[in-house]
Amino acid sequence: MATVGKVIKCKAAVAWEANKPLVIEEIEVDVPHANEIRIKIIATGVCHTDLYHLFEGKHKDGFPVVLGHEGAGIVESVGPGVTEFQPGDKVIPLFVSQCGECRFCQSPKTNQCLEGWSSGGHETMSSLETRFTCRGQKVLQFTGTSTFSQYTVVNQIAVAKIDPSAPLDTVCLLGCGVCTGFGAAVNTAKVEPGSTCAVFGLGAVGLAAVMGCHSAGAKRIIAVDLNPDKFEKAKVFGATDFVNPNDHSEPISQVLSKMTNGGVDFSLECVGNVGVMRNALESCVQGWGVSVVVGWTDLHDVATRPIQLIGGRTWKGSYFGGFKGKHDVPQMVKAYLDKKVKLDEFITHRMPLESVNDAIDLMKNGKCIRTILSLE
Amino acid sequence: MATVGKVIKCKAAVAWEANKPLVIEEIEVDVPHANEIRIKIIATGVCHTDLYHLFEGKHKDGFPVVLGHEGAGIVESVGPGVTEFQPGDKVIPLFVSQCGECRFCQSPKTNQCLEGWSSGGHETMSSLETRFTCRGQKVLQFTGTSTFSQYTVVNQIAVAKIDPSAPLDTVCLLGCGVCTGFGAAVNTAKVEPGSTCAVFGLGAVGLAAVMGCHSAGAKRIIAVDLNPDKFEKAKVFGATDFVNPNDHSEPISQVLSKMTNGGVDFSLECVGNVGVMRNALESCVQGWGVSVVVGWTDLHDVATRPIQLIGGRTWKGSYFGGFKGKHDVPQMVKAYLDKKVKLDEFITHRMPLESVNDAIDLMKNGKCIRTILSLE
Repeated sequence: MATVGKVIKCKAAVAWEANKPLVIEEIEVDVPHANEIRIKIIATGVCHTDLYHLFEGKHKDGFPVVLGHEGAGIVESVGPGVTEFQPGDKVIPLFVSQCGECRFCQSPKTNQCLEGWSSGGHETMSSLETRFTCRGQKVLQFTGTSTFSQYTVVNQIAVAKIDPSAPLDTVCLLGCGVCTGFGAAVNTAKVEPGSTCAVFGLGAVGLAAVMGCHSAGAKRIIAVDLNPDKFEKAKVFGATDFVNPNDHSEPISQVLSKMTNGGVDFSLECVGNVGVMRNALESCVQGWGVSVVVGWTDLHDVATRPIQLIGGRTWKGSYFGGFKGKHDVPQMVKAYLDKKVKLDEFITHRMPLESVNDAIDLMKNGKCIRTILSLE
Repeated sequence: MATVGKVIKCKAAVAWEANKPLVIEEIEVDVPHANEIRIKIIATGVCHTDLYHLFEGKHKDGFPVVLGHEGAGIVESVGPGVTEFQPGDKVIPLFVSQCGECRFCQSPKTNQCLEGWSSGGHETMSSLETRFTCRGQKVLQFTGTSTFSQYTVVNQIAVAKIDPSAPLDTVCLLGCGVCTGFGAAVNTAKVEPGSTCAVFGLGAVGLAAVMGCHSAGAKRIIAVDLNPDKFEKAKVFGATDFVNPNDHSEPISQVLSKMTNGGVDFSLECVGNVGVMRNALESCVQGWGVSVVVGWTDLHDVATRPIQLIGGRTWKGSYFGGFKGKHDVPQMVKAYLDKKVKLDEFITHRMPLESVNDAIDLMKNGKCIRTILSLE
């Protein structure tokens, strides 16, 4: 391609500062360095984690930054040392790397990777090591990906090569939300056939968790949300019961306990709120209930009474659904192509990158499940 | 026996009110009602949980009460409907019942029992349904057992029949502390061969947890206590490393992380302090670390940052080490007789029931591991 070996100028949505709308800018994207891949992003979802960093928390290394971490695209060129990928490959960039060699990658117990952006160890394509510039200054990358740009550069250990027939403007959802929720149920909670589950929060992650519970054979899946507009969609993914905490005067854990003769076998918190995390744990049955924290927040402590744990409940967390990205994401793409997991049903809006702030507003106001931005 | 069918008068240590020494009294012990067993207690350990109820917390149903729940004895007589036990059987009363029929008993995942004192459901020999009187008033039972009495009455679902050759003044420790710690490592944490473990708190429960880690094949067992006098004893049970948090200025989780290249595989909190519980969790390695709350407290919340869980740690709790009492305690007695678990090494003091307040002082001041009271 004409671009190989050259800096690319392209459009990206730049967050110049916290709590301000993103700005569509022309940015420069450097050539891929050793072990890196430059990817033409075709489509990207907008995820709560993007908003979290923009509004609620602080982006780890500051601003300006290009957000976005739920994209899919096509390899444009590769840097020295890359043999696994070629220009033209369809790929999903990963915010959880899989180097394949560290003790975490070699353990079947976890999808953490010591080489990854998120581990805080040797930081691969960290925010500080960006390939972006704009208006003469460095623009940071986000979670090693930055999919709100027509081109981005990602380390090869954080890229999954997927089936060439996959529709990129749909499977991009496997880059974060759907894998996160589905895997939390299947891989982390290890939901069992015939069990009773509760899913707190019915955004894309929560709906994917409902789908995961259903796929694992749960008999009863209680969908919990303050917004009853979400219940119809939850039914599509397999939810059997629907609870709006606002309809009850007693704590939601007591409501669920009464509905289930003592509590659910598995609960999944897909909101990112420490109060909900507590409720999710305490909604579990004593003896063997397992609660999984899926929603992201790190601003406050999460708490419970020790007796909740001593009584036999297990509290876990899930990160990207426990999926090892390079290995598992291509299999999830295949599962979609084989109609074993749903993706289209998550997509409520499609718009061009230029409308990213509209997409953010939809999400902030709970008016969408997932919006897909087109970058072509 | 001459006592069968009659009220027995015997000695017991009565707690008349909170925060006061126990008083040796003559009490009356009623005949066993349907499905109950009257036991002549031969020996009992003194456990922190007794103190907890006497000093720190409130006994569930108030005072006066006969404490003690770590005893062993001989069946004196049985009530109507009891066929599994006969006078003369050696037994250990259980504060965790095993009815064998509820959905908890029928699940391999838990040792909770819906019929038990602790479940809060149908309360078997609850504190309110006591067989004790003293000076003309009802005296409550504690955890359905009350072993600080020469005779007590226990429901048959809360009694384990043990090997007739077992020395009661030693195997009584299997009624609580040793099973609690050992099982927390083996059954709840499921410590793996070659793993690295940390045990916080080196009382009898903590030392039994060290023994459990060792028995499960842990390669490295880090014993943590503020009292370095405990380290020598911990070595006897298999500890390999010793850490006194007072020797370090940085948080203990960071000390352990540095010692172990990122944190331990398994940690066990055997203190009953919510700050230590947090430290124990945060001392675990990300990705797969498992922390088990073993120590008892319910006065305060226990907390951590959600990222600790999302990062791949699992928080669990253990109650009586996950052992199903009627089935498993006799096997633990056999393991002791076969020299597969140590018990004698826990016993630092022996004294008569009359010295119960001395035993309590020893425990409060950290001057003993276990004191065995003789009731004969």
